[in-house]
Amino acid sequence: MWKPDRQSPLPLYLQISEHLQERIVGGEFPPGSPLPSERKLARLFGVNRSTVVQAYAELRSHGFTESIPGSKTIVGPFKHANAEIRTPEWHRYAESGSFLPNLPFLRLIRENLAGDPSIIDFASGKLSVDLSPDREIGRIMRNLPYPPAEGYDGGQGFLPLRKALAEFLERHRSIRTTEASVLITSGSQQSLYLITQCLLSPGDAVAVETPSFTRSLSMFQSAGLRLYRLPVDERGVDPDAVRTLHRNHRIKMIFVNPNYQNPTGTVLDPGRRSRLLETASELGLPIVEDDPHSLTADDAPLPLKAEDAASNTLYIGSFSKIAAAGLRIGWIVAPHSVISRLTDARRQMDLGFSVIPQQIAARFIGSPQFAPHIERLRQQLTYKRDLMAEALERELPGLVSFSLPEGGLHLWCKINAAMNDSRLLDEALGHGVAFVPGSLYGAEAGHMRLTYARPKAEEIDLGIARLAEAIRSVAE
Amino acid sequence: MWKPDRQSPLPLYLQISEHLQERIVGGEFPPGSPLPSERKLARLFGVNRSTVVQAYAELRSHGFTESIPGSKTIVGPFKHANAEIRTPEWHRYAESGSFLPNLPFLRLIRENLAGDPSIIDFASGKLSVDLSPDREIGRIMRNLPYPPAEGYDGGQGFLPLRKALAEFLERHRSIRTTEASVLITSGSQQSLYLITQCLLSPGDAVAVETPSFTRSLSMFQSAGLRLYRLPVDERGVDPDAVRTLHRNHRIKMIFVNPNYQNPTGTVLDPGRRSRLLETASELGLPIVEDDPHSLTADDAPLPLKAEDAASNTLYIGSFSKIAAAGLRIGWIVAPHSVISRLTDARRQMDLGFSVIPQQIAARFIGSPQFAPHIERLRQQLTYKRDLMAEALERELPGLVSFSLPEGGLHLWCKINAAMNDSRLLDEALGHGVAFVPGSLYGAEAGHMRLTYARPKAEEIDLGIARLAEAIRSVAE
Repeated sequence: MWKPDRQSPLPLYLQISEHLQERIVGGEFPPGSPLPSERKLARLFGVNRSTVVQAYAELRSHGFTESIPGSKTIVGPFKHANAEIRTPEWHRYAESGSFLPNLPFLRLIRENLAGDPSIIDFASGKLSVDLSPDREIGRIMRNLPYPPAEGYDGGQGFLPLRKALAEFLERHRSIRTTEASVLITSGSQQSLYLITQCLLSPGDAVAVETPSFTRSLSMFQSAGLRLYRLPVDERGVDPDAVRTLHRNHRIKMIFVNPNYQNPTGTVLDPGRRSRLLETASELGLPIVEDDPHSLTADDAPLPLKAEDAASNTLYIGSFSKIAAAGLRIGWIVAPHSVISRLTDARRQMDLGFSVIPQQIAARFIGSPQFAPHIERLRQQLTYKRDLMAEALERELPGLVSFSLPEGGLHLWCKINAAMNDSRLLDEALGHGVAFVPGSLYGAEAGHMRLTYARPKAEEIDLGIARLAEAIRSVAE
Repeated sequence: MWKPDRQSPLPLYLQISEHLQERIVGGEFPPGSPLPSERKLARLFGVNRSTVVQAYAELRSHGFTESIPGSKTIVGPFKHANAEIRTPEWHRYAESGSFLPNLPFLRLIRENLAGDPSIIDFASGKLSVDLSPDREIGRIMRNLPYPPAEGYDGGQGFLPLRKALAEFLERHRSIRTTEASVLITSGSQQSLYLITQCLLSPGDAVAVETPSFTRSLSMFQSAGLRLYRLPVDERGVDPDAVRTLHRNHRIKMIFVNPNYQNPTGTVLDPGRRSRLLETASELGLPIVEDDPHSLTADDAPLPLKAEDAASNTLYIGSFSKIAAAGLRIGWIVAPHSVISRLTDARRQMDLGFSVIPQQIAARFIGSPQFAPHIERLRQQLTYKRDLMAEALERELPGLVSFSLPEGGLHLWCKINAAMNDSRLLDEALGHGVAFVPGSLYGAEAGHMRLTYARPKAEEIDLGIARLAEAIRSVAE
């Protein structure tokens, strides 16, 4: 009897749906006849029931079957019964194109979190819902004039938001710019996507902090870039390493996250900052400065962009880590010629996006509610960070080491025992807690990123207790 | 004396800014010294003053200069006076990457429209502001519960909107689907971008209606696709041509717009529809069906997707042509395996977008205001179409030919005289009216797309009168 091939790169559910499709088209199951129950087929093929559910959904989406009351699946009518029916081999189309699939670890974590709300989430790099200024945003929305008197998004972003951001960046980050040099994006992910797609070519070498969030981006591989490690120690990256990479590999761009780096929490130290700018300026090398976390802390150091006389820096920011899961607004600040190129390319990808969240964002950062929101956010993040640190000391004394980050959303933990990342993640998910293994960011095995910003405060103790059990059971 | 090189591919303003930059760095203009006035420099270099304005903006954005009161420009302080300052050669970065610049015609039209509000706009393929249901959208927004109880956009789109769309598509377009097979995008442009980037590879051959909107998309060239013509006559495309292209060029996808095609207004006839579906099914060839216009007309034919038993069709729709310049929401309906691949790739480009316009759209299409809006839209579009047709008959009798489209936003006009597209466009812009030359869509010279949906009703007569003058002055 036919069984799916577990060695095949094609997912089990697609193998099953294609197999059934052949039997349907071959006439074994004529229109109107019922297919076997999901449970039965799962037993026959030796797979989980959920795999059969997916396979049936696939058949249904191709129009081969229909659902009828009583959760049965029957073969659908053939509208072109006399024509030779041939569905495109969608899985082959889905495998071509320039996008590599996202990383299996991330998919595994996402699917587990989506499927089981009882899992405590130390994995998603986001604020918890209670830290989002939803009430303020709701109020602004309800009082918004619509349509906006200032017109719509012309591709570069809603003009009043670009103006408001130019002021915001000067006030909060000492960056001097104007609306002409700001591009609004749908978040840092799109900012990085635009930069890697428009300013670099496949085969180009770039330097990326390691460990870093950027390492985890399939986007860089999809763009065909060659990534070179820029090691991060407790004072950030070493500018001399940039010089060496430039000499040996002709790197064309550097990606850094100088304040409260994701995932390590490191702050690039002042001496290295000036040397990094000097080096970049000497080599004519652009720096992409990702700065999502500075507003999460009091007294964050100024960004490179503020000190960058030679305009070497492309500055990326967003509201995602300081506000509003619902807005999704990011920005790039760069020389006007770069912004105008990125805007032109962006028009090929989408024609700009809704003006409504842009109106809201512009009003929110100009509102008297903004400063108190940031104040409260900082207090809450510190509180959660300390809760997590205490729980770790209590539950895993001596077994983990970490430094307390002064900003950002994450605790970067080293496990003081040999540990297979993948096994630990499986075990943790089984115990009801999710984290991101350090190897995803290019770190050596035995590191974890634990996001304290994401869980509710009252979940942190339980989550760390579950994690401790998982670590102990893998260490044994 | 130095002058910019008009043969160089580098824009004049960049040549000027780089020239001045060298002189500044070389010490000719020390920090604090004023640069020549824009007017004077324009005369010296023999360029428009606006070019110098751009060059100065460029210098300013690189931090070389500052503006001081009295609209003077002075050289800025050098913060790293002892380091060798070298700005990245941004124009080289801006020229690499996989995106070709957008087409010069479109840029020219856009820049003219942006710079001179007195130009009557028959070029932008959009509804006029008064046809947008802004009042309804404003009301829904002011009553929106926020944060949404249903959570946020997980990458595939806000779940309640996907559900609402599945119902909407069944009711209005007889397409049977479920929320699992719908991906929300930020408009048709992003839908096409995702499909061309994720399901095709550089070098792949595809068939594109000619003339068509798709022809004008730099996106297709940027993706490295080879485009083959699928000629559009008064009954749409000929399915036999698809077969020939498949045999000769191994085309991997077909792009069509069967209802009120952009720009010709053509409707694909019923016999050809079935044959197209049969052909695609026989060849296992996916059809991308763009359907932006069906709701602009009473009794639009059903989409291919509704008749497509073999699931050959990727269906693309959007609200842009029937509502809401401010929402920017589109969708793709496809087999679940394709949607899940596109969703995965889309997460690399952006992490989904704001839930707020998605909430609004879901409510709007479910509201009692939706049907009256569509009714009013159809009346107004017919009224404007007839106004434009009458004005053309009156102002240009015998000089232009066209058929009255039964839906969509555009009149497709043939000029019955030899005419250079580019000269006519220049002349028309000079006379204060904009249109899109047919050659942009791959048509032979002497065609124009005139969008009657975009101008206010009271501008149409004057706009056509200006166009008639322009045509006469070029024809002479």
